[in-house]
Amino acid sequence: MEKTCADALPLTVNSSEKQETVCIFGTGDFGKSFGFKMLQCGYSVVLGSRNPQMSSLLPRGAEVLSYSQAASKSDIIILAIHREHYDFLTELVDPLNGKILVDVSNNRKINQYPESNAEYLAQLVPGAHVVKAFNTISAWALQSGTLDASRQVFVCGNDSKAKHRVMDIARTLGLTPLDQGSLVAANEIENYPLQLFPMWRLPFYLCSVLCAFFFVYCAIREVIYPYVNGKTDTTFRLAISIPNRVFPITALVLLALVYLPGVLAAILQLYRGTKYRRFPNWLDHWMLCRKQLGLVALGFAFLHVIYTLVIPIRYYVRWRLRNATVTQALANKDNPFSTSTAWLNDSYLALGILGFFLFLLLGITSLPSVSNMVNWREFRFVQSKLGYLTLVLCTAHTLVYGGKKFLSPGILRWSLPSAYILALIIPCTVLVMKLILIMPCVDKTLTRIRQGWERDSQYSKSALNGKSDI
Amino acid sequence: MEKTCADALPLTVNSSEKQETVCIFGTGDFGKSFGFKMLQCGYSVVLGSRNPQMSSLLPRGAEVLSYSQAASKSDIIILAIHREHYDFLTELVDPLNGKILVDVSNNRKINQYPESNAEYLAQLVPGAHVVKAFNTISAWALQSGTLDASRQVFVCGNDSKAKHRVMDIARTLGLTPLDQGSLVAANEIENYPLQLFPMWRLPFYLCSVLCAFFFVYCAIREVIYPYVNGKTDTTFRLAISIPNRVFPITALVLLALVYLPGVLAAILQLYRGTKYRRFPNWLDHWMLCRKQLGLVALGFAFLHVIYTLVIPIRYYVRWRLRNATVTQALANKDNPFSTSTAWLNDSYLALGILGFFLFLLLGITSLPSVSNMVNWREFRFVQSKLGYLTLVLCTAHTLVYGGKKFLSPGILRWSLPSAYILALIIPCTVLVMKLILIMPCVDKTLTRIRQGWERDSQYSKSALNGKSDI
Amino acid sequence: MEKTCADALPLTVNSSEKQETVCIFGTGDFGKSFGFKMLQCGYSVVLGSRNPQMSSLLPRGAEVLSYSQAASKSDIIILAIHREHYDFLTELVDPLNGKILVDVSNNRKINQYPESNAEYLAQLVPGAHVVKAFNTISAWALQSGTLDASRQVFVCGNDSKAKHRVMDIARTLGLTPLDQGSLVAANEIENYPLQLFPMWRLPFYLCSVLCAFFFVYCAIREVIYPYVNGKTDTTFRLAISIPNRVFPITALVLLALVYLPGVLAAILQLYRGTKYRRFPNWLDHWMLCRKQLGLVALGFAFLHVIYTLVIPIRYYVRWRLRNATVTQALANKDNPFSTSTAWLNDSYLALGILGFFLFLLLGITSLPSVSNMVNWREFRFVQSKLGYLTLVLCTAHTLVYGGKKFLSPGILRWSLPSAYILALIIPCTVLVMKLILIMPCVDKTLTRIRQGWERDSQYSKSALNGKSDI
Repeated sequence: MEKTCADALPLTVNSSEKQETVCIFGTGDFGKSFGFKMLQCGYSVVLGSRNPQMSSLLPRGAEVLSYSQAASKSDIIILAIHREHYDFLTELVDPLNGKILVDVSNNRKINQYPESNAEYLAQLVPGAHVVKAFNTISAWALQSGTLDASRQVFVCGNDSKAKHRVMDIARTLGLTPLDQGSLVAANEIENYPLQLFPMWRLPFYLCSVLCAFFFVYCAIREVIYPYVNGKTDTTFRLAISIPNRVFPITALVLLALVYLPGVLAAILQLYRGTKYRRFPNWLDHWMLCRKQLGLVALGFAFLHVIYTLVIPIRYYVRWRLRNATVTQALANKDNPFSTSTAWLNDSYLALGILGFFLFLLLGITSLPSVSNMVNWREFRFVQSKLGYLTLVLCTAHTLVYGGKKFLSPGILRWSLPSAYILALIIPCTVLVMKLILIMPCVDKTLTRIRQGWERDSQYSKSALNGKSDI
Repeated sequence: MEKTCADALPLTVNSSEKQETVCIFGTGDFGKSFGFKMLQCGYSVVLGSRNPQMSSLLPRGAEVLSYSQAASKSDIIILAIHREHYDFLTELVDPLNGKILVDVSNNRKINQYPESNAEYLAQLVPGAHVVKAFNTISAWALQSGTLDASRQVFVCGNDSKAKHRVMDIARTLGLTPLDQGSLVAANEIENYPLQLFPMWRLPFYLCSVLCAFFFVYCAIREVIYPYVNGKTDTTFRLAISIPNRVFPITALVLLALVYLPGVLAAILQLYRGTKYRRFPNWLDHWMLCRKQLGLVALGFAFLHVIYTLVIPIRYYVRWRLRNATVTQALANKDNPFSTSTAWLNDSYLALGILGFFLFLLLGITSLPSVSNMVNWREFRFVQSKLGYLTLVLCTAHTLVYGGKKFLSPGILRWSLPSAYILALIIPCTVLVMKLILIMPCVDKTLTRIRQGWERDSQYSKSALNGKSDI
Repeated sequence: MEKTCADALPLTVNSSEKQETVCIFGTGDFGKSFGFKMLQCGYSVVLGSRNPQMSSLLPRGAEVLSYSQAASKSDIIILAIHREHYDFLTELVDPLNGKILVDVSNNRKINQYPESNAEYLAQLVPGAHVVKAFNTISAWALQSGTLDASRQVFVCGNDSKAKHRVMDIARTLGLTPLDQGSLVAANEIENYPLQLFPMWRLPFYLCSVLCAFFFVYCAIREVIYPYVNGKTDTTFRLAISIPNRVFPITALVLLALVYLPGVLAAILQLYRGTKYRRFPNWLDHWMLCRKQLGLVALGFAFLHVIYTLVIPIRYYVRWRLRNATVTQALANKDNPFSTSTAWLNDSYLALGILGFFLFLLLGITSLPSVSNMVNWREFRFVQSKLGYLTLVLCTAHTLVYGGKKFLSPGILRWSLPSAYILALIIPCTVLVMKLILIMPCVDKTLTRIRQGWERDSQYSKSALNGKSDI
């Protein structure tokens, strides 16, 4: 549909009604595409250009005039021009007086100028109602009708009537406007399209550090160590064996780090005896990117699963198994079946599978469209109850994996324990702390605090207040 | 963006315009967060509190007054107070007369009170236009700007103007209001956030029962039976082998149960000779949670896949294979290659894989955001055509799995057949019934009925009617 | 919520307000369901019917009148009648004069009539403001409240006031209206619900052709060839072995075809020295269905993964491995461990896994709800940067798979090389071309062109223009 709509020639030609006229300054890509789209959606469009006759490839049905002429045709002007060229507007102060000026500009880097383009514009043309909007929309997407990336249009401005006019236009174009308040927000809005996954930065750094560390750690134990004493070349382990140790460890630690801030926050509230004090910023930020942390962890868990399933196809594994069989055949001794080993092995696999399955569910429910279908209680149920169950299962998976050989000194190489033992530290701590927090006595106090109760008497009244209010 | 917006200090301070003023009663978490958000989005906010001076941590830019003073400042009042404390409003009947009262309250359990909080409020303050809204929004999410769970705001009220005012506010806050009609709907709306996956209950119970039954069934055949005659301890099978029988069976049966109601409905319509009579409630309800049934089935199918792929890593399997090889080597007899076995084995695997793949496609297309992109014809094509293909493939997968040894008495233990044979009953019935329904003769009648034709003459006219109308 | 809301009896009964009245012509399924939904959402509904007394199963709270009476009750009439029966409206020209007529009809096949139903209606009742809307909504979904498929309502019409009235109704019903311009768009809108994945057609044909060709090709090399010289029956390979060659090849080629058009476009722009000329249509269309191509490729990659993981469970594989072991045991010669083979084998597996993982990420980010959360820069980063990385990894995966035996004549059968060698042609070409395009010198020119610079001097001015404008 999108597409066909995008291909259809502008439809206003044979439209009987008197339509709203919108003026666009600038005939660059954005100006053109935007004009094209507006014509499609039943507006009549006037393009303002420095040299009208020179402009090429303009959308059919739009007339091109000089800036001042174009401005006179409509009371809403979309400014599709780079900030560097705003100065010419100073000559148009009178014709623009009282009109709505929509600033769609973006900068090349974050906080490029002292003030946002929209505010700069408002200073240049004090008489006009400046509204910031549409800067997150891509010209190409508008034209081709494939708005794959965001349909969200962040709108801000000091005049609410002007703002609502612009939001209506956005809705008519099939976009979803979001009011961001007064023009001060323009700065945020202009920086937004320049951001590259800001919320993912912390998780990304964390997992890189973890991976790097554990990779080196395992490399020392499983490649360098055997080479030094034994001169055996096991470098090929770098391709699969070692990553398949690093990935699950990273996944487990990251998953634990998703639930650590919640626990810390609870402890902080218990310690302060009130919830009416802000958390330190690092904790706030940590809390806000828990979802991203979890998804990165899920990614590593997924890699771990495939790396594991691929084991029996590996040449190295097949070679080892075959040789074992051959030697057994030649030695002609039978190896008895150990039920306990079977139990350990099977249950650790089962725990891993179930843990991964729940983890996947968590990931799916964190998809915007899914989390949008559930109410708050359901969302919390999934994200906290199921989340902790996942953590428990995955930790158990690692513990059982260790199995008997857990604390046998044999596994120490250069007095370095196996990596998975280090991996268990954080998850176990989190689980233990959580266990303490959900003990009736502790839990009761915490709940009261979260309902607004405060320890120090002076607040008692506002506490009462907090109780009666939602 | 959300986040930054949430952190930005309220922007109204230096906003030049005359803004809409909104009053909020109650300075609890919700009251505060809501006020904070409204300030951000360009409203000016007045908080009404029992003891204004005592209230702590109020959003900057909002003034705090006594209830009556606050009420006088705005014609729309958001009531962020627990129902238990509504009584104080009786003193404010006059100042609240003709104003819009927004009830955002929730209860602790479903149908806690005879009438909904909003209706109770309407009785207390007869002069005000009561609107129910925002009860599904979480205070914390509003504040932090991470509206992970639903952005949907269900709105209801008897005065449509008041309702539209509230819906506009919701849109300005970046939420999506949904009109639910008159205040009678308030009850539903107040129960909604207390629900925990109502549509998932039936699928959940169904799969628990199926799992439990088949688990016990398999345990008897594969653990107790060998123990009783043979004293062999095979308890370790409980971890993987048996679940990997139970899960696929549950998945297959549930998948069949997704398509059974459709078949039953068709038969019912054929029998009644009209579509103009409601289905029994159980059938209606069954039809409405087909999607959930299917997704649960997919979950079990997924588990089955991983449990199967993990087989060659299992200690037990490796041990068995090795011993088989060793004995063969010692006996020095060769085992000839059987093409038919290879065929059976490979094709049953292939069928399973393809079935699972289609099943996964079904699951993906049932994601809200995906199903939102397809038109009705495409959706039906995927959900019914592909759905049945999936069912056929999975049933075939199970049939071929049985292969030759299907009805050999050898597999009877205590005269119990293998579980997968029981699993085939429902799917095969569904497929056979469907086969009958799509036979030309039957299909023709059914189509006519669904186009509005009715068998008994008396209705003929309205049938004709049904034909001419959409 | 949906459901409960759908079950709730219409709420207008005890609603105190004066509501907007809407009239619906036709008491077919759509008319009834639509009336039912509107009653729920607080409208009062009048149904117009040919024979009011005969109509069965009407929604409670709606009154049924003759057409002319019903029309007089409201200024907005929803026409739920098949185009074939519009003629009766000619008698109602006067009562319908100046009213809003909403055409919800659909046809049985695309472009069934010379002009769209809505335009035909506009000719029949020249005095009315005809608006096309709601034809994409399913009656059953409206009634049951499970709007699984699209909530989008495409609206078009020549009178903007009428259009906005209809769009408000759509929003009130919880649907998302999209303005498509004047009534000329009605044709597109009526064809939309009849389309069956138009954008998926090209990808689908492409992959069918590729699969068919490579399947036959492999069948010749691996089934017919060994049968002709050697009389060995390897037909069972058709089930898994051969598909597991065909799928990865198809996936790789399709993935390459996702990035080929982009490269071609760049070359074209370099050759023309301007971006201000439209691409040929085939290239445009190809560009627009890149996403679908990629998803189909992902599907095949997924199948390849499972087919590969299933290998060690296959009877054939186990049989071969066991015999190899037995013969080795009997021959009592040991087979030395080759580190190089281990390296090749492991790294080709690792490359494949990582490639698949990135591919999966691409697929997930192309989900509407996900791509809706990222800004344009982030979307481009994922889709192009990560995309090319995926292509590189998958190509490397195939190259390393070939490993040593790559060009040994031994693998030629009837002078046919292994299939995967053919598979590498397109991907390698794309990568090489891309490599040339990102060389500084070439890249600089391309960037300038994309910023609006044009080679031929005459355009220099508008080029300058293009520079200053967005």
